[in-house]
Order: sequence, then C-alpha cells, then structure tokens
Amino acid sequence: MTTTTTPTAQITVYDVTLRDGNHALRHQASRELVRDYCQLADVSGVDYVEVGHGNGIGASSALVGFSLETDEVLLTTAREALTRKKLAVHCIPGFATVERDVLPALANGVDLVRIGTHVTEADTGAKHLTAVREAGREAVSVLMMSHMATVERLVEECVKVEGFGAQAVVLMDSAGHFSPADVTARISAIVDAVGIDVGFHAHNNLGVGIANALAALDAGATIVDGSSAALGAGAGNAQLECLAAVLVQEYGVDLGELTPFFRMGSLIAERAAGHLPKTTSSSVISALAGVFSGYAPHVQAIAEELNLEPALLWRELGARKVVAGQESIIREIARDLMDLS
Amino acid sequence: MTTTTTPTAQITVYDVTLRDGNHALRHQASRELVRDYCQLADVSGVDYVEVGHGNGIGASSALVGFSLETDEVLLTTAREALTRKKLAVHCIPGFATVERDVLPALANGVDLVRIGTHVTEADTGAKHLTAVREAGREAVSVLMMSHMATVERLVEECVKVEGFGAQAVVLMDSAGHFSPADVTARISAIVDAVGIDVGFHAHNNLGVGIANALAALDAGATIVDGSSAALGAGAGNAQLECLAAVLVQEYGVDLGELTPFFRMGSLIAERAAGHLPKTTSSSVISALAGVFSGYAPHVQAIAEELNLEPALLWRELGARKVVAGQESIIREIARDLMDLS
Repeated sequence: MTTTTTPTAQITVYDVTLRDGNHALRHQASRELVRDYCQLADVSGVDYVEVGHGNGIGASSALVGFSLETDEVLLTTAREALTRKKLAVHCIPGFATVERDVLPALANGVDLVRIGTHVTEADTGAKHLTAVREAGREAVSVLMMSHMATVERLVEECVKVEGFGAQAVVLMDSAGHFSPADVTARISAIVDAVGIDVGFHAHNNLGVGIANALAALDAGATIVDGSSAALGAGAGNAQLECLAAVLVQEYGVDLGELTPFFRMGSLIAERAAGHLPKTTSSSVISALAGVFSGYAPHVQAIAEELNLEPALLWRELGARKVVAGQESIIREIARDLMDLS
Repeated sequence: MTTTTTPTAQITVYDVTLRDGNHALRHQASRELVRDYCQLADVSGVDYVEVGHGNGIGASSALVGFSLETDEVLLTTAREALTRKKLAVHCIPGFATVERDVLPALANGVDLVRIGTHVTEADTGAKHLTAVREAGREAVSVLMMSHMATVERLVEECVKVEGFGAQAVVLMDSAGHFSPADVTARISAIVDAVGIDVGFHAHNNLGVGIANALAALDAGATIVDGSSAALGAGAGNAQLECLAAVLVQEYGVDLGELTPFFRMGSLIAERAAGHLPKTTSSSVISALAGVFSGYAPHVQAIAEELNLEPALLWRELGARKVVAGQESIIREIARDLMDLS
C-alpha cells in the first residue's frame, strides 16, 4: 500500500471482539479469554475494549442465551487487565436496567456505555444515557438495524440522541446489508446534521465490512468498530487486524506497532477456532433480506431440523421485519412457512 | 442496499474458482468437481469460467505441485459442462509452451487464453499472445504481482501488451497488497492510456478483495475476477457470491438471478470445506511484505518445521522480492534466516 502523506483526523478504534464476538461464541467467552485478550489489547492501538454478553449487560437469559460468566466477572477481569485502555459495555434498554445493570457496571470501572436501541426507537435509551452522564462517564448512542430506516429518519434519530446528551452516535449495520455507497450516503448526512462524533459498526455478510468501515471514515465518521479475526455475529465484523493495517499504511493513523493487532487476531483465531465467522452464500442471502446476522445459527439449525430451505426462512424473516431479540419467533415463522407449503 | 438507477457499462464477470482455487486445493481439483461446478456456472451470470492448475496450463510439476487431473481432462470435462459460457485458461510462459500446451488447449475448446507474466516482463508473453490470436481465439494479457511496479511502469507494460495484440489487460494483485486507493490510482491511469478493456483480479489478504474489485470498476475497469467461496491462493479472491450481489443490487448489472451464484458458493463451501481461504494476521503480514499469497501453506509448513516465526520469513521473502514459481527458494531463505539468528 501507498502510505498517504495527508495527515488524518483523530480516529477512535473501538474493539468489539469480546462483546459482538460473544455472539459467535454463544456468549461462552471465559474469564481466561477476556484476561488474555485484554492484556494484548492493552498494548495495542485500540482506544476502547467492549466486553460482555453479545446483547450487552443484563442480557444473559433464556431468550437470547445465558452467558458463561456474569457481567461482574467479565468486567472486573477486563478492568484488571486494561491498565491503559478504556473499558466499554453495550447496553440495550429492555435487557439492561439502570439500577440492576448500568450502575453496577460503572462501579466495576466501565469508562463508556453504549446505549443500543432499534434504529427508530432511540428515545427508549434516554434514561440510560442520562444515568451514565450523571455518573460522569461517557455515554454513546448506538442505532441498531440501521438499514431499516430511511436516510432522513436516521438523521432525525441522530439529532434526537444528541439532544438526549449522547456524546457520540454509532450506526450499526446489524444485518450486514449496506454497500459502501449506502454507508457514504448515511454517514455524510449524519455528519452534516449533528455536532457530536459519528461512528460505524460493520458486519461482513456481503464481504464489504472493511470497505464499509473505510467508507464511513471517508464520509466523516471518526469512530470505527473492529473485531479481531472478525469474531462477531453472523459473518462477523470489520476484521481489526486488516482495518488496523489499512488505517496505519493508507490513512496515516498512528496506531503504534501492528504486531499487537496480529497477536490479538492470532489469539482469537486459535481460541475461537471452531467459531470464526464466515462470509457465505447464506450470509449474503440474510444481508439482502435485511435480517440481523446473529440469527444465522438459529436459522441454520431450525431450517435443518424442519428440512426447510434456509433462503426461504431468511426471506420470510426479512418480510416480517424481525429485529434482534426475537429469537423465539424464528421457529414460529418457520412452522408458518411449512404450513403454507 | 440501494439499487442504483444509473445504467452501468457492460461488465464482464470472470470466474477463477477452478483455477486460482486450485491453489487452495493444492491442484487436486477433480473432474467431478469441475463438472458439477461448471454445470452450475453455466446457468449463472458469469461470462467466463477459467479452469486448470493454479499456475495454469502446462504447470503441473514437482516445482509447483502436480495436478490431480491432466489439463486435457480438466478442459474436456469443463467444455462438456459449459454449453453457454466461455471456457478460459491461465497460461504462464515458462510453464506453458505454445506447441505443448496452448494449441492442445485450444483444440480442447478453450475460448480465451490469459497470458500471465510477471508485471515487468510482459514481453515474454508476446509469442503466446500471437499464437492465440492467429488461432482466432481471445487473447488477454495478465500482469501478475502488479504491486511490484510503479504506476508509470504498469502503464508502460499495458501499452506494450496492447501493441502485442492483447484484447484486454488484467492486473493481478497476487500478494493482496493493494488498498482500494491503490487500485483506483492504477486502474484509472491504465484506462486513460490504453484502448483495450482493463480488468482486475483481487486477493483478500487485507480483507478488501471486494472493495478493490469495486474500486477497479469505479475507475473504469470492465472485467472483474471473482471466486466462489473466495477459493483461491492465500486469503482467496474477491468472493463471487458477494460480488455478484453488489453488482446486481448496487451497480444495476444484469447478471440474472443470484441463486446460481449462491449454489456455486455453497458447492465450493461443501466440497472444499477443509481448504477455504481465510483472512488472518498471517495473510495481512504477507500482504504488507508484498509476497505472493499462494506461498502461505509453504511458509506455514516450513516455519513450523524449522520453528521459525512466520512473520520473519514473510518479511525476508518480501525483502528478497521473491515471485511466484520460486517455491523451492522458500526453504533456502528460511535456512539463511536461521543461520543469521
């Protein structure tokens, strides 16, 4: 690659390996993995390390799966290993309450809380945002399943969360549905409309995870999410070791040495060997259907059990606009499809 | 994705699964795989199906590995299955001679021959190009390891192959070294300088295979290479089922239904399950070192055998500017490194 000579704006690298990656691990990330990974991340160029159940603090449940470790164990383990880097959590109102989950997380040393809501329901996060700000920690709003809103509606929601006191807003392409051009259109519209930092969280269902992360930065985003070995829901996220290499070599971002990123990638490749995400025909089908990519293992298992074509099930889930957290509905929809056929 | 309403120039989709993918299979593609894959490809939106040993016709050897099947078996099997689509081969002068390899391939019904040379040695392909043109078939020039030349030198070589009678010229990013910006700079300079079609062949070492393919098309390329399930040397190629989805949905390219592409991807994912390429810390290291990504299995094996850090070996191979076809030298360089340490 040709190193650019143009100095680049400060970019925040946000590592979701131990949270989004926990989807791929079916929430079985162990304290040993969290410790070992955080020790490597602590000497890398990442700014934040997000840790927890795939659906964030307070989400361990029969509905979306139980965590191997409690939030407290995950966070205290990470906090101990992260002496230089900031510790962050994902927090979905509905799974997480302020009293039961957010305040204890802050007590365990969390620096930043990302409040995640469905893209058109940012107002459900206002209370959580306020609690985090009042505690003097960083509060960021995350709009999940962001392909389900028009560009105009997206901008409205972003303006709204700025009003609630969010210090940044991050778009999640939870279905891995966006092309780079889609990302450019959305991020540039948002950057024009708000005065806070804007971020992007990619999924690699269409094989354009890193391309989308770069498109977001080119359009004015300053926060970018990545995951070592791409470990994350569905086809995984923007692969952090690749993203870091391109940011350093091409964008001139100062992330220090790349070696820690390679070690983090290799650690995950080794420890999560049977769970590494793949971009497949099925991930492309789910992306085009616009369905949360974390449903992949459920859809695959139910389709096999009922001898149903997975593509049909993905399309029906898309048609019914199913959103994250509705795992229990996949089986019902599959049965409906079978009754119809 | 947002479907574009702008009509797009005609794009040629060139499928390298059964040739570049044969690197990943260590050249063990069977006649059954070739038959079954070609039957699916024949009803898909691809234009050309390239078949053969990873290093092309005539390359089966102790130096770069023996093919399971002869060129004749591979080509006659593919030809029989391809009733609508064109059959193509890769041909590296040095491995392939006109009399022994090219003319028999044409006799077996090959429509197009891609003459591949090291990026700065396009003149070594002139004789082969002429032979293909004289036989009334399509002849295309391929510049391999294209990151090893400056933009100016690349343009010179492209102008040269146009003079030799090449009907198109394709850049291969054999090391997966380019960022999208690198591709844009190179392809646009070449498109400005020549009157023939220009193509791009990506490797996914940095996770930007599809991004680079799209950057090439945006810069004026009209031929794009892809590989089902990304099967190809090193970290694989631009994944065809993803590329097809983006081309149809975003670029408005008429590739018919996407279903055949998904079937091709699933067939390869199933039959080549143990051999699917991965983007890893190691592939990023080899890309940054600028070494042919097909060396990955050799480097990995030799590094393990000699208990040598793979990153060191990649860097030394890069420093010595080793090019494809020099597999035997990897062990010598590894031994030199050990003597030094």
